[in-house]
Amino acid sequence: MNAHDALPAVLDRVDRDLDASLDRLFALLRIQSISTDPAYATYCRTAADHVADDLRSLGFDASVRATQGHPVVVGKAAGPSGNGGARGAANGKSPRVLFYGHYDVQPVDPLDLWTTPPFEPRLETLDGGRKIIVARGACDDKGQAMTFIEACRAFKAVTGALPLDITMLIEGEEECGSKHLFGFVRDNAAELRRDLALVCDTGMWDAQTPSITTSLRGLVYEEVRLTCADRDLHSGLFGGAARNPIHVLADILAALHKPDGSVALAGFYDGVPELPPDIKADLAGLGLTPEKFLGPIGLKIPAGEQGRLVIEQISTRPTAEVNGIIGGYTGEGAKTVIPGTAMAKVSFRLVGTQDPEKIRTAFRDFVRARVPADCKVEFGNHTSAPPFAVAFDNPALAKARAALAAEWGKKAVTVGAGGSIPIVADFKAVLGMDTLMVGFALDDDRVHSPNEKYDLKCFHKGIRSWARILAALAG
Amino acid sequence: MNAHDALPAVLDRVDRDLDASLDRLFALLRIQSISTDPAYATYCRTAADHVADDLRSLGFDASVRATQGHPVVVGKAAGPSGNGGARGAANGKSPRVLFYGHYDVQPVDPLDLWTTPPFEPRLETLDGGRKIIVARGACDDKGQAMTFIEACRAFKAVTGALPLDITMLIEGEEECGSKHLFGFVRDNAAELRRDLALVCDTGMWDAQTPSITTSLRGLVYEEVRLTCADRDLHSGLFGGAARNPIHVLADILAALHKPDGSVALAGFYDGVPELPPDIKADLAGLGLTPEKFLGPIGLKIPAGEQGRLVIEQISTRPTAEVNGIIGGYTGEGAKTVIPGTAMAKVSFRLVGTQDPEKIRTAFRDFVRARVPADCKVEFGNHTSAPPFAVAFDNPALAKARAALAAEWGKKAVTVGAGGSIPIVADFKAVLGMDTLMVGFALDDDRVHSPNEKYDLKCFHKGIRSWARILAALAG
Repeated sequence: MNAHDALPAVLDRVDRDLDASLDRLFALLRIQSISTDPAYATYCRTAADHVADDLRSLGFDASVRATQGHPVVVGKAAGPSGNGGARGAANGKSPRVLFYGHYDVQPVDPLDLWTTPPFEPRLETLDGGRKIIVARGACDDKGQAMTFIEACRAFKAVTGALPLDITMLIEGEEECGSKHLFGFVRDNAAELRRDLALVCDTGMWDAQTPSITTSLRGLVYEEVRLTCADRDLHSGLFGGAARNPIHVLADILAALHKPDGSVALAGFYDGVPELPPDIKADLAGLGLTPEKFLGPIGLKIPAGEQGRLVIEQISTRPTAEVNGIIGGYTGEGAKTVIPGTAMAKVSFRLVGTQDPEKIRTAFRDFVRARVPADCKVEFGNHTSAPPFAVAFDNPALAKARAALAAEWGKKAVTVGAGGSIPIVADFKAVLGMDTLMVGFALDDDRVHSPNEKYDLKCFHKGIRSWARILAALAG
Repeated sequence: MNAHDALPAVLDRVDRDLDASLDRLFALLRIQSISTDPAYATYCRTAADHVADDLRSLGFDASVRATQGHPVVVGKAAGPSGNGGARGAANGKSPRVLFYGHYDVQPVDPLDLWTTPPFEPRLETLDGGRKIIVARGACDDKGQAMTFIEACRAFKAVTGALPLDITMLIEGEEECGSKHLFGFVRDNAAELRRDLALVCDTGMWDAQTPSITTSLRGLVYEEVRLTCADRDLHSGLFGGAARNPIHVLADILAALHKPDGSVALAGFYDGVPELPPDIKADLAGLGLTPEKFLGPIGLKIPAGEQGRLVIEQISTRPTAEVNGIIGGYTGEGAKTVIPGTAMAKVSFRLVGTQDPEKIRTAFRDFVRARVPADCKVEFGNHTSAPPFAVAFDNPALAKARAALAAEWGKKAVTVGAGGSIPIVADFKAVLGMDTLMVGFALDDDRVHSPNEKYDLKCFHKGIRSWARILAALAG
């Protein structure tokens, strides 16, 4: 029985197995695999082992591969008749696919804003009967990655095999820049090079409308530490003469944007494309008003570049954001101090052909030009990823759109995503693969925030969607 | 024997008793009386009891008086023949004096920059034989207050009595704005109203040159909390459209100063006097170059108002300083967040007849005018104190200058101080008293910073100086 013929039985299996799928997701969500904080390294290892064991149960030849950071899980499984070689897409047959996801999650601070503990997943029923899965990682990316794995499980249960040659690549450092994954992909290029990459780490257009993400913004993340005096000073004794690093930092950060909301770095907009008029018209037609987009988070007024659609601002335009700042006394009450140092974390979202390293250099030059001669500035490089866009003529794109339309009863849109999946650009550059990004996150999922959630419907129909896409690609 | 005749014996006693004086200071320094942090309230009470016991040993009728905050120590002692009444200064006799000091100290963070624990006082001998007392409060204000108390002790030991009618007022909230002392002074005005106040919480001009501080800057301390979105946001999903409160805060703080270093609040310079030309010439003659003042803290370039002497910038000109700022992710590594809130602590040093409440209002108006309509700002009022200046024709000023000159072998200068001693303005306004501020702090005492110290020489000659001043006032 080929994958197409098996699909009805596979979808039925997905429906009947949903409770067990949810139990398996909860087991993964209980693992505190925060990758940014070294204190959680053991949990990351536990999550990797957990995922590898699960893949083995589906017939994958899975291993936990050490890196200088958190380990990478790799799993390999041939298709129904071992289509790993001559039957690849290069010969017009089923493509061999590489599925990428990540088992690591964001930090949970501020912890006191969580209504229940972030690593004790629970199913909550909202007014109107909508069910949500609440936990750190419920959506990003454990919940999303499990939609693909559960689709594989259903195929395996019904047909005894996977519908395609599938290689799994589940990493543990996505939330801290995937810094060891790049070398891993280079070192294992032959093993990981397939015909197409699939990723489930993006969102739907809205709760009814499926979406394929065809571009991702890149990222440059910098840390700036300013030192003025060599110690903290009493603001009474030194105030008025001693340089205050918070003032210097505020001046720099205030200068980072022009009054029109654009970014002031020299050459920042080099390589930023204007959208073709028809694409821009499509985006305008989606009707994403500032009220619709910002209202749910308590805001009304778009903060970014003036004269741009909100959907442009958040997906196809580059940005600069201060992600964190600290200096001086921040405890209770008053302390009359002029601090010796102040620090900020600043990141840039990139599009088109913006070059992360040129942006980094432009930023550092921008800062250095504004630091007084008797003060010191130090930079930390946390991460960078170039922007990415999928080729619109990739035949898999049309197949996946049709599969999604069949599941959701609505045409699947193609959009750009504002966030980064750093490795996707590398799949193109190093492995020569395009990537289809299909995900089921919703705008209200509180990704990276307290009380992160994933709709049960997204989880369920996400699994069904992947089953349909796998069948379509196999056919 | 009158106080003048007793002076040589008193000074001799001070010299012979120095080791014991130091032991007594160390005992006080060991008490962790941090007033800003409520966790240390018990230590503040212990310090108050300790001071009261010590005053009783000198013949003071001392008590620890409760307030809504940390307690106030009050001690009363008549002079040699009970000169508390008709023999007051109003009759041309010895003035009755009120000595003010504080037993509370600043927080000790960042603790890891202390070379030894802040509440384990030690005597350190530097290259060249200079000895310093190292501890939190070694200078501010335990060490300084003890110079006066030890001078009293020497008089008591030699003459059997104190040389003047002395009332002691030792509070425990100076480092957090003295907020309950103002009411205490009002409620106990009759008891505390004397002919002259003495304070030991200021500095020398340099290690050789004694100084009387004739003016103090006032203070307004504000906290600003900005809220934009009602949650933390993923900078990939929302970056470019959602308002970032760190950006808003940076814009506001950057706008607080004009390019010439002056403060941009409306009406800020109302009531700021220009120095008389002769006084300004005296100050210029002290030769405090930017290199001399800023070099020891690792800086070179004055940050304040352009076209002003450094000594003006730090004493007779008003300032605005950001004392603390925090927002977003400030831990290790990277987190791609747009925070919902950001906070800053901002304080203003005031001079002349600047009105703290007008400045506070001007600041809040300045901030509100720069907050987008869909964001929220909240203010916290931590403290305020009006600026103060002593009358130059107070006869006690001349006596004290002569006494200091005799001890140090060098003319005592009169200067303005940049810091606040909030209660001194109240002594004038509520009790009708002028205040002589005589202190022995040095610029390198690291007051409010890690490794705070007080020179042993300053402690020793400080005690001798007070003995001479008390004798001069009694004479």
